[in-house]
Amino acid sequence: MRPSGRRLDEMRAVSIETNVSKHAEGSCLIRMGDTHVLCTATLEERVPPFVKGTGLGWVTAEYGMLPRSTTSRMRREASAGKQGGRTVEIQRLIGRALRAGVDRVALGERQITVDCDVIQADGGTRCASITGGWVALRLAVNKLMKAGDVLSDPLPSPVAAVSCGIYAGQAVLDLDYPEDSQAGVDGNFIMLGTGDLIEVQMSAEGKTFSRDQMDALMGLADKGVGELVALQTEVTSA
Amino acid sequence: MRPSGRRLDEMRAVSIETNVSKHAEGSCLIRMGDTHVLCTATLEERVPPFVKGTGLGWVTAEYGMLPRSTTSRMRREASAGKQGGRTVEIQRLIGRALRAGVDRVALGERQITVDCDVIQADGGTRCASITGGWVALRLAVNKLMKAGDVLSDPLPSPVAAVSCGIYAGQAVLDLDYPEDSQAGVDGNFIMLGTGDLIEVQMSAEGKTFSRDQMDALMGLADKGVGELVALQTEVTSA
Amino acid sequence: MRPSGRRLDEMRAVSIETNVSKHAEGSCLIRMGDTHVLCTATLEERVPPFVKGTGLGWVTAEYGMLPRSTTSRMRREASAGKQGGRTVEIQRLIGRALRAGVDRVALGERQITVDCDVIQADGGTRCASITGGWVALRLAVNKLMKAGDVLSDPLPSPVAAVSCGIYAGQAVLDLDYPEDSQAGVDGNFIMLGTGDLIEVQMSAEGKTFSRDQMDALMGLADKGVGELVALQTEVTSA
Amino acid sequence: MRPSGRRLDEMRAVSIETNVSKHAEGSCLIRMGDTHVLCTATLEERVPPFVKGTGLGWVTAEYGMLPRSTTSRMRREASAGKQGGRTVEIQRLIGRALRAGVDRVALGERQITVDCDVIQADGGTRCASITGGWVALRLAVNKLMKAGDVLSDPLPSPVAAVSCGIYAGQAVLDLDYPEDSQAGVDGNFIMLGTGDLIEVQMSAEGKTFSRDQMDALMGLADKGVGELVALQTEVTSA
Amino acid sequence: MRPSGRRLDEMRAVSIETNVSKHAEGSCLIRMGDTHVLCTATLEERVPPFVKGTGLGWVTAEYGMLPRSTTSRMRREASAGKQGGRTVEIQRLIGRALRAGVDRVALGERQITVDCDVIQADGGTRCASITGGWVALRLAVNKLMKAGDVLSDPLPSPVAAVSCGIYAGQAVLDLDYPEDSQAGVDGNFIMLGTGDLIEVQMSAEGKTFSRDQMDALMGLADKGVGELVALQTEVTSA
Amino acid sequence: MRPSGRRLDEMRAVSIETNVSKHAEGSCLIRMGDTHVLCTATLEERVPPFVKGTGLGWVTAEYGMLPRSTTSRMRREASAGKQGGRTVEIQRLIGRALRAGVDRVALGERQITVDCDVIQADGGTRCASITGGWVALRLAVNKLMKAGDVLSDPLPSPVAAVSCGIYAGQAVLDLDYPEDSQAGVDGNFIMLGTGDLIEVQMSAEGKTFSRDQMDALMGLADKGVGELVALQTEVTSA
Repeated sequence: MRPSGRRLDEMRAVSIETNVSKHAEGSCLIRMGDTHVLCTATLEERVPPFVKGTGLGWVTAEYGMLPRSTTSRMRREASAGKQGGRTVEIQRLIGRALRAGVDRVALGERQITVDCDVIQADGGTRCASITGGWVALRLAVNKLMKAGDVLSDPLPSPVAAVSCGIYAGQAVLDLDYPEDSQAGVDGNFIMLGTGDLIEVQMSAEGKTFSRDQMDALMGLADKGVGELVALQTEVTSA
Repeated sequence: MRPSGRRLDEMRAVSIETNVSKHAEGSCLIRMGDTHVLCTATLEERVPPFVKGTGLGWVTAEYGMLPRSTTSRMRREASAGKQGGRTVEIQRLIGRALRAGVDRVALGERQITVDCDVIQADGGTRCASITGGWVALRLAVNKLMKAGDVLSDPLPSPVAAVSCGIYAGQAVLDLDYPEDSQAGVDGNFIMLGTGDLIEVQMSAEGKTFSRDQMDALMGLADKGVGELVALQTEVTSA
Repeated sequence: MRPSGRRLDEMRAVSIETNVSKHAEGSCLIRMGDTHVLCTATLEERVPPFVKGTGLGWVTAEYGMLPRSTTSRMRREASAGKQGGRTVEIQRLIGRALRAGVDRVALGERQITVDCDVIQADGGTRCASITGGWVALRLAVNKLMKAGDVLSDPLPSPVAAVSCGIYAGQAVLDLDYPEDSQAGVDGNFIMLGTGDLIEVQMSAEGKTFSRDQMDALMGLADKGVGELVALQTEVTSA
Repeated sequence: MRPSGRRLDEMRAVSIETNVSKHAEGSCLIRMGDTHVLCTATLEERVPPFVKGTGLGWVTAEYGMLPRSTTSRMRREASAGKQGGRTVEIQRLIGRALRAGVDRVALGERQITVDCDVIQADGGTRCASITGGWVALRLAVNKLMKAGDVLSDPLPSPVAAVSCGIYAGQAVLDLDYPEDSQAGVDGNFIMLGTGDLIEVQMSAEGKTFSRDQMDALMGLADKGVGELVALQTEVTSA
Repeated sequence: MRPSGRRLDEMRAVSIETNVSKHAEGSCLIRMGDTHVLCTATLEERVPPFVKGTGLGWVTAEYGMLPRSTTSRMRREASAGKQGGRTVEIQRLIGRALRAGVDRVALGERQITVDCDVIQADGGTRCASITGGWVALRLAVNKLMKAGDVLSDPLPSPVAAVSCGIYAGQAVLDLDYPEDSQAGVDGNFIMLGTGDLIEVQMSAEGKTFSRDQMDALMGLADKGVGELVALQTEVTSA
Repeated sequence: MRPSGRRLDEMRAVSIETNVSKHAEGSCLIRMGDTHVLCTATLEERVPPFVKGTGLGWVTAEYGMLPRSTTSRMRREASAGKQGGRTVEIQRLIGRALRAGVDRVALGERQITVDCDVIQADGGTRCASITGGWVALRLAVNKLMKAGDVLSDPLPSPVAAVSCGIYAGQAVLDLDYPEDSQAGVDGNFIMLGTGDLIEVQMSAEGKTFSRDQMDALMGLADKGVGELVALQTEVTSA
């Protein structure tokens, strides 16, 4: 019944290739089906003005899509002269999500910037960015720990995200673009590896939703995030 | 226990003064405690390019804060040369929320722009904007109906929004600024007058949250939106 | 003969409501007929670079119009990405006018920013902004004096402004929008409470003017400013 | 007593060299002492949208200063990414002034853009721009008339401008930069060749002024504009 | 003697992986050593205004670097609000270079946009972009030809580019970043597969150069471009 | 055979008028036929951040065209809100070229900014800017040397530039606009007075070129630069 033939609670094939960048302190290429996002983490010993002198660390994120990552070419934001509203919204979300999983005291007064650049898009780019972004962050922090620059682990539990929605009247897990563009309700669920919630966004796209539907989506999200956290743990524990 | 002395499930005093603008097709000044937002609805017979020729209506929103609506003066966005990320995120939310309550076929191919300008801020400006914005929209649509320009009502049910959060470990309704700046979890709930959900956003601000806490917030939101819908109905039925 | 039925030398009804903002150091809402401007004064202990170290104070102003303060909706300047030429011209004028009434030595090295935001427009917004802006400034300076932070009064005399013009061949006082849009000559007169001149701008709008007409406008301006200064004194002396 | 040794009512040496541009329809280089402005008039058969279909002509102006036209180098506005407030204010003034001398019916539905670029600045650049800009405009219109494209003269009388001010307590004509930077009052007077007034701007720069001083400045302006109009007539009648 | 141990006339390992994008009409990932550029070609049936109605085709290019493609993170141009001077210069060069190899009559009135996005940088990104960009262009044109939309081949000969420079006093082929940052002279050579020259740029970086050195660089370029053209031909003939 | 009737190897009449600016430390107006560029050099004792503390000097350049320097009026870049790609490319070239002739140790930690503003354009503006820019730079440095602020000459040899191209199948020297707009190949050659090369740019404009043609252009450039250097030396040695 789903365009891809997947079961209602079945995620797309997910892979995370680590250390793909020669320069970045941490990096990975995450593939959720045909959605491919390159995530890099950049470590700097300086922090933004509002953090300076607090002794706390800072994690921020930026998001971009290559012009032809999409079905039809999008205008390059650098040439348009500004980031669009959707881009700004997404990169603020990624930053908030990752910070919720960081012990800023343990990190110490330094900044990590996570860049999430969509190489190819097929739905769910913000969730893939968060899941992959955490892997890049984890790898950068591992370097800090190996060097003895931080003593206790600033990343106690993974952060992962998955989208769920009501498609053709059914709650489904991990929407791809054909589903996303037709879904009546679209939700993004960001969680810790512990199962605690970081951010929940559910949005009616043409059709409002009930409490029961909301609960069904939450159930799918639990399953999906569990699978992503297992993969994150595997690829970063080597 | 709350800074304002309110009960956990008690909203601030809310008032909605209608028809405050000499020029706008619909307008109101909504006050939720010390948060005051001027909402105007502008009706235009033209629609954006992506709607043209579809026969459907369009509703969009813009949001702004006066520079000294806040405790310390904010830089004027017009002089900064762009709308900040928070502004863009909020006005996209207001637009989506209001559209979810519009029957675009009934509205017909015309556009209504809802401007929400924060005169004074004390927490919860986006929720006040949605609730007041719907009143301005309702009044503008009433004019269309009186003039016979639309035949069936494009606004079947009110749209209202309220914030809830975990403050000092307790779920509380309608956060003011002192609570909002200290809350561990912050949620915005947008609903129809029927009780159906339009958008749910819950976000950990330093502390993650459980399913039980999520349910407690939903319960408070139900109560708050109910009260707002009653007031919206009262002030627009005159 | 005037669209409003006023006499040639009759101002619109003027009111100034003070302390309308919970946050600003000084504030008022000035109403000149249907022109309503919210004026706030923000006090900061820092000054712009070109003033630093001089021991002198600085007063500056910003001006804005809400998108639907006008008959048809104007594009929001924050979303257009810049302040228009008219806005820049007006806010420079307001700043110059207010500074002309300030003893910068007495003020001491601190800055006061006066924001003038037009809630509703019906002609004469720049003059209302100056007159109301001075009231906000006065109230903020009163706080400084009460606190003992300035010793001698930095505002020796009120600053007020009024427009006059040639409408239907006659010199008239305080143009409203229907007059302003038809006037052959448009003038703005900014004066101290002492009657001394701060700035005079007269501009042919389609019709040039003679020295005699210029003198007639000056005479009306004297009368109008006198009435405004009396009101400013009354509302700030309480 | 004046830094330059000029009498109180003595203008600087003025010259206007015409047809200095190979490409422009009309052009001149005006020199008022050490202030040198290159003025070009560009004729186009298209008009801005708000004029289209009215049958009326349009005249507009742009103003710029070369970065090192001033004592210390100014930042190039193209590189700063926008025209400063002073630039915008001046070019709006030039445009308004020139339009006041144009019979837009006689001109017919076409546009003339007058560019005024300050090659070297020593005070009074806006007045020199208006006086020189009219010469460029006159020469472009002459071409139109010679070609039979307009039948009655759209420029019935010259437009010229001069600055006057209170320097060291005395009313003086045509301020140069050393005077301008010290003047207590600064005025710009724009007039037709007939002596009628187009625009009067007088501004206190640190010192307010009286009606008597205002009259003294007007008297000097009459004299100065008279001399400029004579020169404009001479150089364009050849 | 070269940091990489390469011979003076030895290129880095080059590979071109084709059809890497699900969406683009033509695409490849070119790797010249550690410099990796993703090139996509987007075909559109519309052309820019200055081409419309001529019957000719148009090819244009855009260039970007991911923020962490470089040793230290660069600011994202979309967030900076404009493309830097270097970016603009490079994308104009790529566009000119590719157009020089296009028979615009044969292409017909349509546009192909080639996006070159640097995934990882280690010197020579503009040359890699041109060489890879031509492959993406070739693959997109192949589709047009297969569909019968163009009849004669608009790409008679490949376009390829290589950098050469004077490093440590010696002429070397294909500079990597360690060489590029120390080179006294830096040159880019763009040629057709026929050996004809499209663009030559040689630039002293601290040291001027002689005619003999110029000739030595040209000789190396001939060799390098020959090898690249062979690879382009191989990967696009499949 | 050339539109101007010049011989293949004949430059346009060139003149350089020095000290044309009252304010700049060095200045000239260079005329190459109908191409007229005003060049000024501004000396500042501060340097950009990336030079600070190195003890080295810095030379940079900016380029602009007056809106009506061209056949049809160009949009003013300050009003467009940014410098176009061509402008950025040219001013980077001028800066690089001039720096290649500067002994930055001898100059000492100070900055000279060379502004090249095109008053009238008829082809070859970038070459005229470099040649004239060097004269302005030379005159500014002369002042430094006379004042004893630099001890050994930071400008050991003049920098000059000339364009050559293939026009109607023939190699010609110093293209004017009618030739430039028709040329099949366009080259810019920047050299020291010693004959050493600073920058060579040759670009196919519709037609690729051979090594022989490249050599022919180089020969013409040698002749042209020789004549320009002689003139530069003459006008700066007085």
